[in-house]
Amino acid sequence: MRVGFIGLGAMGQAMAQHLVKAGHDVRVWNRTPERARPLVAAGATRAKTVAEACDEAAVVFTMLADDAALIDAVSGGDNEPGIIDGLGEGDVHVSLATISTELSARLTQAHAESGQHFVAAPVFGRPEAAAAARLTIVAAGDDAALARAQPLLEVMGQKVILLGADPPAANLVKLTGNFLIASMTEALAESYALLRKNHIEPKQFLEIVNGNLFRSPIYESYGTLMAERRFTPPGFKLALGLKDVRLLLASADRAAVPMPLGSLVHDHLLSAMARGKGDLDWTALAQVVAEDAGIVDG
Amino acid sequence: MRVGFIGLGAMGQAMAQHLVKAGHDVRVWNRTPERARPLVAAGATRAKTVAEACDEAAVVFTMLADDAALIDAVSGGDNEPGIIDGLGEGDVHVSLATISTELSARLTQAHAESGQHFVAAPVFGRPEAAAAARLTIVAAGDDAALARAQPLLEVMGQKVILLGADPPAANLVKLTGNFLIASMTEALAESYALLRKNHIEPKQFLEIVNGNLFRSPIYESYGTLMAERRFTPPGFKLALGLKDVRLLLASADRAAVPMPLGSLVHDHLLSAMARGKGDLDWTALAQVVAEDAGIVDG
Amino acid sequence: MRVGFIGLGAMGQAMAQHLVKAGHDVRVWNRTPERARPLVAAGATRAKTVAEACDEAAVVFTMLADDAALIDAVSGGDNEPGIIDGLGEGDVHVSLATISTELSARLTQAHAESGQHFVAAPVFGRPEAAAAARLTIVAAGDDAALARAQPLLEVMGQKVILLGADPPAANLVKLTGNFLIASMTEALAESYALLRKNHIEPKQFLEIVNGNLFRSPIYESYGTLMAERRFTPPGFKLALGLKDVRLLLASADRAAVPMPLGSLVHDHLLSAMARGKGDLDWTALAQVVAEDAGIVDG
Amino acid sequence: MRVGFIGLGAMGQAMAQHLVKAGHDVRVWNRTPERARPLVAAGATRAKTVAEACDEAAVVFTMLADDAALIDAVSGGDNEPGIIDGLGEGDVHVSLATISTELSARLTQAHAESGQHFVAAPVFGRPEAAAAARLTIVAAGDDAALARAQPLLEVMGQKVILLGADPPAANLVKLTGNFLIASMTEALAESYALLRKNHIEPKQFLEIVNGNLFRSPIYESYGTLMAERRFTPPGFKLALGLKDVRLLLASADRAAVPMPLGSLVHDHLLSAMARGKGDLDWTALAQVVAEDAGIVDG
Repeated sequence: MRVGFIGLGAMGQAMAQHLVKAGHDVRVWNRTPERARPLVAAGATRAKTVAEACDEAAVVFTMLADDAALIDAVSGGDNEPGIIDGLGEGDVHVSLATISTELSARLTQAHAESGQHFVAAPVFGRPEAAAAARLTIVAAGDDAALARAQPLLEVMGQKVILLGADPPAANLVKLTGNFLIASMTEALAESYALLRKNHIEPKQFLEIVNGNLFRSPIYESYGTLMAERRFTPPGFKLALGLKDVRLLLASADRAAVPMPLGSLVHDHLLSAMARGKGDLDWTALAQVVAEDAGIVDG
Repeated sequence: MRVGFIGLGAMGQAMAQHLVKAGHDVRVWNRTPERARPLVAAGATRAKTVAEACDEAAVVFTMLADDAALIDAVSGGDNEPGIIDGLGEGDVHVSLATISTELSARLTQAHAESGQHFVAAPVFGRPEAAAAARLTIVAAGDDAALARAQPLLEVMGQKVILLGADPPAANLVKLTGNFLIASMTEALAESYALLRKNHIEPKQFLEIVNGNLFRSPIYESYGTLMAERRFTPPGFKLALGLKDVRLLLASADRAAVPMPLGSLVHDHLLSAMARGKGDLDWTALAQVVAEDAGIVDG
Repeated sequence: MRVGFIGLGAMGQAMAQHLVKAGHDVRVWNRTPERARPLVAAGATRAKTVAEACDEAAVVFTMLADDAALIDAVSGGDNEPGIIDGLGEGDVHVSLATISTELSARLTQAHAESGQHFVAAPVFGRPEAAAAARLTIVAAGDDAALARAQPLLEVMGQKVILLGADPPAANLVKLTGNFLIASMTEALAESYALLRKNHIEPKQFLEIVNGNLFRSPIYESYGTLMAERRFTPPGFKLALGLKDVRLLLASADRAAVPMPLGSLVHDHLLSAMARGKGDLDWTALAQVVAEDAGIVDG
Repeated sequence: MRVGFIGLGAMGQAMAQHLVKAGHDVRVWNRTPERARPLVAAGATRAKTVAEACDEAAVVFTMLADDAALIDAVSGGDNEPGIIDGLGEGDVHVSLATISTELSARLTQAHAESGQHFVAAPVFGRPEAAAAARLTIVAAGDDAALARAQPLLEVMGQKVILLGADPPAANLVKLTGNFLIASMTEALAESYALLRKNHIEPKQFLEIVNGNLFRSPIYESYGTLMAERRFTPPGFKLALGLKDVRLLLASADRAAVPMPLGSLVHDHLLSAMARGKGDLDWTALAQVVAEDAGIVDG
């Protein structure tokens, strides 16, 4: 099948490779064109414009950094046609990125007005999981579009969960999942600060509570990074984590749901930004919490 | 071995039974004496006073409701001798309850001044786990005392973790572990409120994030109780959960460690108390969060 | 002088009247045209469109409900010209409303690109103060524009403070001033809840602390409303108060300044919205705080 | 009249002087006896023990640093008699310090059991106000005791407010008043951080909002100290401010009143302690807030 793939960051690269390997005719596009090389080497075609990547493609995927980048790609601009112009009637745009529920709703409507379909299919997992095709993908959109997208998503993830006809629901599930992780990070950060000032090793504590209570691989991996204070290289940049928490709080605001823990995590991540930690892994939230407790690491 | 066991609530009952079954000569005491009956039927001896339960016992266990109850038992009063008076030189007092680090430090000193030993050995697990001898026990105290206590603790728990010579460290690990659980509850509660107002089922969300991300039995059990809003009968009463968070914050205060998430959880549990929910399970914190979002459950 | 005045809510009405009384040729416009009547009766002219209100006016004032309404008025739309189209080169647009610093920056640039001037001149005071010309007005814009606007602003307020050349600075001062008031409300609300549950009258407390400590008319007026629980009719609607706190937090976010008290006030106002209190006075924040403490008012 | 005065810190010194000047026979006691010298020079008598200061005194005042110091003075210890032993039947103990409502209730009962009276009479004002007899004093106790204490209190303060028969009520009013001040400090601190990062002078902002909105001497004095970042010498030490917030939160806890702003102020003051700012003025809370925003002052 001919498919387009727009946005070739660490995640997009890895995911597009699986489509190529599965034998699809993949047209790729990225703002910085060099990033297309490994895919072209593997058999993909480099499109010169977003619209070219969409041309004749039944499905086009986007994996872009934020709402603004996706809006640009969809609408085009400066005499550049965008995805809406490039796709034909009945074609499907699948957004894999973590975007706002508000943009998801707007794109659903915009594509519908052009006789096209929009599917929100955000993914759980880091670049390593993307490379190993072990992502979990949560997809929502109308039945016809999901039917078209699902086999392609299954090439890229080990599990595809269909969430119904409303795309923003998939984005909300993704944002809320990220919030749970950020909350875990905050809880571990405060715990570690307390333990350290009482001369108890965070690592020993983690072994006890995760070994006997949580038994969770995510507590294991995040908790270990934090105990060892390995905040670089980043698995997920703090600046991006803050962006996601902002999107969550915007959704909560619209729904009139106070999320004081969301606000707390936001404020700590924002403090991390102000202290110059935006390029560290987002578990570096723990440094803010430690510094607030007067702990100065060498 | 002759051992004493003081405090026969749901947890104490179950734990003392294992000691009896293992063939020890167990002297039990409880403020409400009727609670001793099942143990006496199983072969234990009912002591008429705390001191009698300690008499000739090499080790005496306490599993009491709070700091105040433990202080009473240790010091006695009104011409009633307490544990300090009842124990001989070289004997060991093992406190299994979740008590403050401050009291733990005081008891360590008080027993030492009487030539006795104090071991803090708080347990992770609910009454069902106690009945099945599947508790995890974290113990700290001097080597001689731990050597004496360990075989007995292994009768009651499936795992005994030795944490070193400083009893308050074990209590701090326990309080901090409880804080992690309370934080998870708060994060799930806020997530569920947001999802419900967006017409997404919490249970479906839990399946996605725990099935693919956390993979934790404790997210599974707590998250399910909360999704089904089954807050009674309580597995762990909200009023007791608040007590533990208070003890944690007192430790944090002494160590000059701000714990804003601890404060948040405290304030929500306190609000639950004020709204008459103290006897519900402590996951009923979720009701406070839902009500704050204007969600009224039938 | 010929001036335009767009937006005739309670505040705009009262302010435009002063311009009419001072002998200016005032062209007024409002989405609901009936609201222009009292002004026309006093000597103003009703404009049929926004652009007509701007026509030949050296200065046009806007006092609109929110960012969206102001954007509509400035840009026009649906073949309706807006303020930018209506004003001539060198003319001045003075925004009196509480708008975002971001919009203020955008309008500064947009007017500059059309050879026009933008002045942000938000006001402190409620409708009664506007009617009595006792407002305090904080104005920022380039020197030429301020020189033109100042005499007109002095007709409407008892005090005009010039803040320099950067319009968003005036908006930020206004938003931050509102934040101080909201924070005072939160502090009084928590205090009152504590006192009431201890059988101490909030009014007696207010007399003591304001009479001897704060000696502030704003503590007096807000504190009395809250002590008497008179939340309707609203002096300033809670929904609008929340809007302003949102704008503040957006500015804080851009500047990487964590404002946890801002987040707290936001979350309580949002909870008030969720509980159906959006049309009450914004001091009804106190009802949320009281309900969280289990206080149920008849 | 013969009166005792126990506790001669900056506040106690100044207050006792007024009693001496008014012609009373004042017996003073302080743990560090040298501090009695200026008072003895003025005509007071130095008591060698607490009990001696109480001997034959119809009223004894205490102005001690914290709950622990007051408990020591009241109960005595180590074969030293305390206030309860020193006072005769019908005599009155007036506590001028900021103590917990819990201790206030206990002392009320303890004195009653000895046929004595307890009056809580906490004061609003700093040492300068004490020296100038411009304190506001809030007193509560039974009628007979208040009648005895009032003329003496009027010698020390410019205003004495009688709050009824329940001593803890006076302590709660004092603690809550301090909470309002701490909340104002937090609000100003967050405002200043936001303004500074937007290149607006806090002092200019303070002039605008206090000159036109709050018109409060306490906003003026605290706001100016904070704008000029003069945190030393301390008018009121941060460590003592934290102590008072702790007492407030303990009262709120007992009354089941969540005070999230109280928790926030507590956490920031605690962070200030952890960062070594305990001996600065308590407005140095602003440094914590600024540092969290990445502002580094020279």
